[in-house]
Amino acid sequence: MVQVNQTPASAPSIPSHSFDSEALRVFVVEVFLKLGCHATNAETAAEVLLASDLRGIESHGVARLAVYEKWLVNGLAPPNPEVEIVRETGSTATVDGGGGLGIMVAPVANRITLDKADKNGSSWVAVRNSNHFGIAGFYVSQAVQRDMVGWAMSNATAQVTPARSKDSLFGTNPFAVGIPAGKYPPFIADMATSVVAYGKIEIARRRQTKMPFGWALDQQGNPTDDPNEVGKSGRPYSMLPLGSDEEHGIHKGYCLAAMVDILSGVLGNAAWGPFCPHFMMPENSAQPPFGKGLGHLLGAMRIDAFDEVADFKQRMDLWVETVKQATPIDPELPVMIPGEPEFFAERQRRQHGIPLLQPVVELLQGVATRQQVEFPAPLS
Amino acid sequence: MVQVNQTPASAPSIPSHSFDSEALRVFVVEVFLKLGCHATNAETAAEVLLASDLRGIESHGVARLAVYEKWLVNGLAPPNPEVEIVRETGSTATVDGGGGLGIMVAPVANRITLDKADKNGSSWVAVRNSNHFGIAGFYVSQAVQRDMVGWAMSNATAQVTPARSKDSLFGTNPFAVGIPAGKYPPFIADMATSVVAYGKIEIARRRQTKMPFGWALDQQGNPTDDPNEVGKSGRPYSMLPLGSDEEHGIHKGYCLAAMVDILSGVLGNAAWGPFCPHFMMPENSAQPPFGKGLGHLLGAMRIDAFDEVADFKQRMDLWVETVKQATPIDPELPVMIPGEPEFFAERQRRQHGIPLLQPVVELLQGVATRQQVEFPAPLS
Repeated sequence: MVQVNQTPASAPSIPSHSFDSEALRVFVVEVFLKLGCHATNAETAAEVLLASDLRGIESHGVARLAVYEKWLVNGLAPPNPEVEIVRETGSTATVDGGGGLGIMVAPVANRITLDKADKNGSSWVAVRNSNHFGIAGFYVSQAVQRDMVGWAMSNATAQVTPARSKDSLFGTNPFAVGIPAGKYPPFIADMATSVVAYGKIEIARRRQTKMPFGWALDQQGNPTDDPNEVGKSGRPYSMLPLGSDEEHGIHKGYCLAAMVDILSGVLGNAAWGPFCPHFMMPENSAQPPFGKGLGHLLGAMRIDAFDEVADFKQRMDLWVETVKQATPIDPELPVMIPGEPEFFAERQRRQHGIPLLQPVVELLQGVATRQQVEFPAPLS
Repeated sequence: MVQVNQTPASAPSIPSHSFDSEALRVFVVEVFLKLGCHATNAETAAEVLLASDLRGIESHGVARLAVYEKWLVNGLAPPNPEVEIVRETGSTATVDGGGGLGIMVAPVANRITLDKADKNGSSWVAVRNSNHFGIAGFYVSQAVQRDMVGWAMSNATAQVTPARSKDSLFGTNPFAVGIPAGKYPPFIADMATSVVAYGKIEIARRRQTKMPFGWALDQQGNPTDDPNEVGKSGRPYSMLPLGSDEEHGIHKGYCLAAMVDILSGVLGNAAWGPFCPHFMMPENSAQPPFGKGLGHLLGAMRIDAFDEVADFKQRMDLWVETVKQATPIDPELPVMIPGEPEFFAERQRRQHGIPLLQPVVELLQGVATRQQVEFPAPLS
């Protein structure tokens, strides 16, 4: 996903330290082992979290380890979920995640998705009884590595309104698509269907700055630029779907958020809409009255089902070159291909380490202490 | 699609007349027969155009008949295209539309899509060498009628910029998804991936009113509210993708427009991006240097591949009820379900006729005269 840097130049900088990605991965694996996970599950979960940090999407990476710990320690999710196919055709399946963490369940479901596409040309797998699955981009990247187009979407804790209401009915409901290229990085679009992620509103609140109008509504349903008005009383947050208002296509963002909710939740009989369990505060979640856990929809299409892979990749490279040659409005901000910044972030971070903010380091040190696992020393 | 009425109350009203939908359909069939189409092709094309007018999406209906006439009269499209599968797997196909009109080619490709999903659970069909296929919602509605989720997308003449540039690289690239419900109308989201359709900018220009900032850029790449600045010199139009600017997620609309372009164009070897042929002014289109014609991607998933149809529909009805119960900000503007306004428009128009603006009536009378077909008398 193209990343927009919202940090004002004058913002006070928070100290950070860089960590070797392999050392961090081993640390995460050891934590999950201590929490009772088998090696395969621990390795899988660590791979998903590290993929996020490597791509520079820190919000969905190891910073969330303490939340996953909370789920497992409190017995809210089994350390080794039984993931099973409950219904299938040649090109589809409905998978029950056994109430497991999404970062353990969805990778298994994604393997089923890719194997089915391998045999039948394309596939869709609906996953229920799962949980937060990390970055959607991880799953579509796995499809891309097998010369497939990948799809991934998930519903989430309700924070976002439909058009015309201030009631939060939908999660930020991410939608991702991955498409392989030839000599260029793959096209990976991975986007929340809300205008911004909640993290952006939190940053504005912490910095005591205004946020732009069009991100959220206040408690009366009016547009607001005050981040303190949003989520004041916990839920509902009244964050706005992409498009922000009627004149700018809020009904389109609403369509996208709703589509992700229905296809992730209703289709495979997971929870949906306002009944989705609360990921960050599972202790506050009532059992949903219908459906089980969060839901995802994963899909894949083999490129060679449509054309020779080499020919397609050559065309994708031409497409990338054409788009990158578009004249930038600001010569210092060239047009980017979705997924390109993350591709180069990963290359850089594999070599020079993953920078973690001091509060995240402290959070992880807390996990290390509680789980009696050694926390790695920083590179710098 | 949820429709936003952008017409100011003070706008001068243009006279209109209502026509019986069946009489209009017969008229369109007769025009296509006179233009050399076989009965099947004429009936198919008429069905697609009328579906649009019945749903209240006049811009994509019979008002475009004169453009289709131009394509056929000038030999730019064959009256009876040879639509053939050039590659396939159990759940996928690449279809060559033989350079035909999209409203004849895409319905055939969609039948292939639905039949493949019927046999294999789900399917994707890439279509190349086609043209403007009317409303995307038509195709997904056909899937819904067979208890399937339907997907449809198409690339189009370049008018829309990527994030960070004023160069028009993408069409308004529509994306549609259709999902059946039980006792309620189906969920049909059908949206251009630009902030607005070009028609909205044209209306502002005709009415000599300002348009909102965030719809388009001027020729220097600055935000503008002057509709005369947009498309002044024909192409490029510099219309903006959904999200409008960096603070409001323009990179997400850009991701969607690009995704539709790649999957409709690059995947099946149709033209793509700025090389897409010009639909309204085909005489101005150079032969694209790569790819053939416009491209579409059509898809379907059988509901019963994932769960019992009756159970799913019951959940969808609960979903619809939950969303419709969201508190409206303005009590006179209740929350709508995508597809609902079009569903009720169709019911109303089947009974009371399709209103056509006087300039559209004159356009159709011109076609009638040229093709020596009788134009129906208005109902009122």
